[in-house]
Amino acid sequence: MPHTIAEIAAALGAEVQGDGEIKVTGAAEPASARPDQLALALSPDFAAGLSVGQARAAIVWPGADWQAMGLAAAIFAPRARLAMARLTQTFAPGDAFGAGVHPSAVIEPSARIGADVVVGPFTYIAANAEIGAGSRLGAHVTVGQGARIGPFAAIRDGARIGPRVVAGARLVVQPGAVIGSDGFSYVTEAPSGPERAKRTRGAEPLAPTDPPEWHKIESLGGVLLGDDVEIGANATIDAGTIRPTSIGDGTKLDNLVHVGHNVTVGRHCLLCGQVGIAGSASIGDRVVLGGQAGVADHVTIGDDVVAGGGAGIISKVASGSVVFGYPAERMDRAFAGVRALRRLVRTGQKPVPKDPPSE
Amino acid sequence: MPHTIAEIAAALGAEVQGDGEIKVTGAAEPASARPDQLALALSPDFAAGLSVGQARAAIVWPGADWQAMGLAAAIFAPRARLAMARLTQTFAPGDAFGAGVHPSAVIEPSARIGADVVVGPFTYIAANAEIGAGSRLGAHVTVGQGARIGPFAAIRDGARIGPRVVAGARLVVQPGAVIGSDGFSYVTEAPSGPERAKRTRGAEPLAPTDPPEWHKIESLGGVLLGDDVEIGANATIDAGTIRPTSIGDGTKLDNLVHVGHNVTVGRHCLLCGQVGIAGSASIGDRVVLGGQAGVADHVTIGDDVVAGGGAGIISKVASGSVVFGYPAERMDRAFAGVRALRRLVRTGQKPVPKDPPSE
Amino acid sequence: MPHTIAEIAAALGAEVQGDGEIKVTGAAEPASARPDQLALALSPDFAAGLSVGQARAAIVWPGADWQAMGLAAAIFAPRARLAMARLTQTFAPGDAFGAGVHPSAVIEPSARIGADVVVGPFTYIAANAEIGAGSRLGAHVTVGQGARIGPFAAIRDGARIGPRVVAGARLVVQPGAVIGSDGFSYVTEAPSGPERAKRTRGAEPLAPTDPPEWHKIESLGGVLLGDDVEIGANATIDAGTIRPTSIGDGTKLDNLVHVGHNVTVGRHCLLCGQVGIAGSASIGDRVVLGGQAGVADHVTIGDDVVAGGGAGIISKVASGSVVFGYPAERMDRAFAGVRALRRLVRTGQKPVPKDPPSE
Repeated sequence: MPHTIAEIAAALGAEVQGDGEIKVTGAAEPASARPDQLALALSPDFAAGLSVGQARAAIVWPGADWQAMGLAAAIFAPRARLAMARLTQTFAPGDAFGAGVHPSAVIEPSARIGADVVVGPFTYIAANAEIGAGSRLGAHVTVGQGARIGPFAAIRDGARIGPRVVAGARLVVQPGAVIGSDGFSYVTEAPSGPERAKRTRGAEPLAPTDPPEWHKIESLGGVLLGDDVEIGANATIDAGTIRPTSIGDGTKLDNLVHVGHNVTVGRHCLLCGQVGIAGSASIGDRVVLGGQAGVADHVTIGDDVVAGGGAGIISKVASGSVVFGYPAERMDRAFAGVRALRRLVRTGQKPVPKDPPSE
Repeated sequence: MPHTIAEIAAALGAEVQGDGEIKVTGAAEPASARPDQLALALSPDFAAGLSVGQARAAIVWPGADWQAMGLAAAIFAPRARLAMARLTQTFAPGDAFGAGVHPSAVIEPSARIGADVVVGPFTYIAANAEIGAGSRLGAHVTVGQGARIGPFAAIRDGARIGPRVVAGARLVVQPGAVIGSDGFSYVTEAPSGPERAKRTRGAEPLAPTDPPEWHKIESLGGVLLGDDVEIGANATIDAGTIRPTSIGDGTKLDNLVHVGHNVTVGRHCLLCGQVGIAGSASIGDRVVLGGQAGVADHVTIGDDVVAGGGAGIISKVASGSVVFGYPAERMDRAFAGVRALRRLVRTGQKPVPKDPPSE
Repeated sequence: MPHTIAEIAAALGAEVQGDGEIKVTGAAEPASARPDQLALALSPDFAAGLSVGQARAAIVWPGADWQAMGLAAAIFAPRARLAMARLTQTFAPGDAFGAGVHPSAVIEPSARIGADVVVGPFTYIAANAEIGAGSRLGAHVTVGQGARIGPFAAIRDGARIGPRVVAGARLVVQPGAVIGSDGFSYVTEAPSGPERAKRTRGAEPLAPTDPPEWHKIESLGGVLLGDDVEIGANATIDAGTIRPTSIGDGTKLDNLVHVGHNVTVGRHCLLCGQVGIAGSASIGDRVVLGGQAGVADHVTIGDDVVAGGGAGIISKVASGSVVFGYPAERMDRAFAGVRALRRLVRTGQKPVPKDPPSE
């Protein structure tokens, strides 16, 4: 639906200059914008694109000379990405799930479905499950026995919500995510290889574990998700052993993230793509873990920690820390280590053979 | 269902002290346990919790003074996590899949379904597939043409079993796992970039591969899984080229693990979350790979190897080794390297610039 | 179906010696080959296997004395893996999806389905979607509103194609892959921890972000896939913000690969298992990224780059580079660094404590 520039500026809390009555139907990059689209020129890098594209209005960077660039209207946004958030929310087309319950869906009679819930084709809701009012479930979704989903959830195609999962309001689940799978928790009768390896660290060869069978510790504890949690595509969250694995309010998980059993993640965290959190780790509030970062089992991470992509966190991290590397350490020190090693290679007196290092 | 403390102790092979006739309906952490729950106080760390919670009985650590902590009965378990395994198995509520074949499921007439098999809503079993007696399939499962699943399998929601997959008894598949996808195996007509890079290692720039098209090597070999194998949520196992990719008896894969085509994994291994095994690698028996560890293609790993989380294994590993690092080496040496580099940074005479290292 | 040795050799563009009229029904490893199978003995390592197996014909290495090994016919292939590609394509049994639209599938009336399209059980095709002629969709597939799939696609069980996804010809999607999930793009009102960490790099503790809420930038841009693209099992590709995330012609993604929003991947690339590409990164043509390699957000990688498994790419990479390590650098230099550090450990005068390094 079309919006006027003045309406958009008001929604963004931003200043408008020029003709606020121009109507636009969507947003585009400056170079490819049509006359009915709002160009997003959030930095001077986009100036050239504006002259190529056909947009009559744009969101521009502070101080931009919009009239010289041929625009009829301009919106000045003090924080560009925040403007992007509000703008894309304005133009989002919705998930097009339709209305009501698709006739092919199967909902067990004991399930409780709130008002205005949308259920897509081939979705299955098991006995005693609860779906909060205003929630929208896509196609091929499974909701397990007794799961409780709060109001205004958006659960996309093929997501799997297991039994004993409890979620707050406004849960978003991307396609294929699995919440409430069994924890990976096994024990051998005698001390296992990893138990013995903690002492030896490779200084002597490990003998076979005898008997070798792994006995499973079952996951009875379910998963507890706060309000405003989002789970990425094909991400997985294991159920806890006897208490729930828990994710705090406002925390977002990216695609292919793995959260092990008994893990606690605080509020307002971001776990980026392919992050892995091993069992029983504990993560504070407002923590951001870069893509492919890993956290070892039972490790504690404080509040307000930032870890760079690929960081391998194997020991406790204090609140407010910024870490990088494998094993992770303070980011400035990790970078210093990289530089020191490169200097060592350059200045090394012994010739360096070209063969790859072997184990 | 309730059990007496004496029954539980007998199941655990553990000693009971106090009133063995107390009945409990489940297990809980000490601080949150209700009077009808068995508190799990497996180490002295839980002593304070016991005084807060309401449990009348607990599993306690060796030497615990259970009467002083207000308990009426105590179970002494010689190996705490093993007791957890048996205890959680005792209290596991089952998967609640119901009984029989759901009317919405589609089973091709030529498929052979054993006695007492449960098939969930919207599950599809293709032609000539076999499902062993006592197996339970959840909702939205796909079983491909001619796949053969042994008795007493538990295949959860949305798992994909491809054609040419053969599994032994008691297979467990968590939601969303894919078994039998195509291998990632391609070849160019002329030597490709990676083939040439093995020689140059970056010392000279790679010219474009010409022609650049990748020709696919198809996967005809399927997947062979032993008895007592468990596959984690959204994990993937590719089919072999002309012989099956194979996983030995008693081996467990965690969530989001990737096993490439032609890989052989031995018996009683654990592959933790997000481990990746590239094509044609070979892994022995009783091997444990920590989370996010990777194994390069065609690499051989012996028996009884333990790799720390994140280890990048690019060359052969001898039986009994404990490895860590990227590239992986003996764990004690890897830790020594980390310390040596940190010492080098501290003692370095040249000032270390603060900029991040660039490629 | 059986083929003569002469037919196979012609398909491979290879020379045949001996009895070209022998018929075979499939391929096998030499040691396990039956008389009606073609043994694949592509290197002298397989000579012993040939004497054990029963094959009468084999593809052999250059110079092999096939008559001495008891064969009645031999095919000489100049490039072994290329012969494997053609041979496995010859013997591939097809995906056995059957013909036509399964009666349980749901296709919205406004969707446009080309000629000879196969649609499996429980598959859902949303409004206004287009499926090109000759395409084959497995079971439990979701195709979102308005998605456009080119001709001769093969979309396997449980794959999720979102709205605003446009694909060229011959798309292959392995089971469980998700194309068109929302980007992981959030912004706080005030500068977030990661924004501030870029300056401090851990030299001072980060204060809490206030207010802490993450505002979502919606993904309106969809995904654009070229011709001959293949997407691995449980891989994920996020939609772009206002322009599509794009993957070029002939590029192949392995299992569990993650491609973030706004990423551009060029033509004829291979992204191996569990590779992760963060948002807005740009990757050239003919690039090969080894398993578990990661690319940081907004990073540019040129053409003809090869990255070893596990490489952590955090800055620009020039065309033709071969890189390894974390952070990634030229492969020969990375190997030299590994060796220099190991030498430093061996020659270090201070005793090295055995404790693991702590953060």
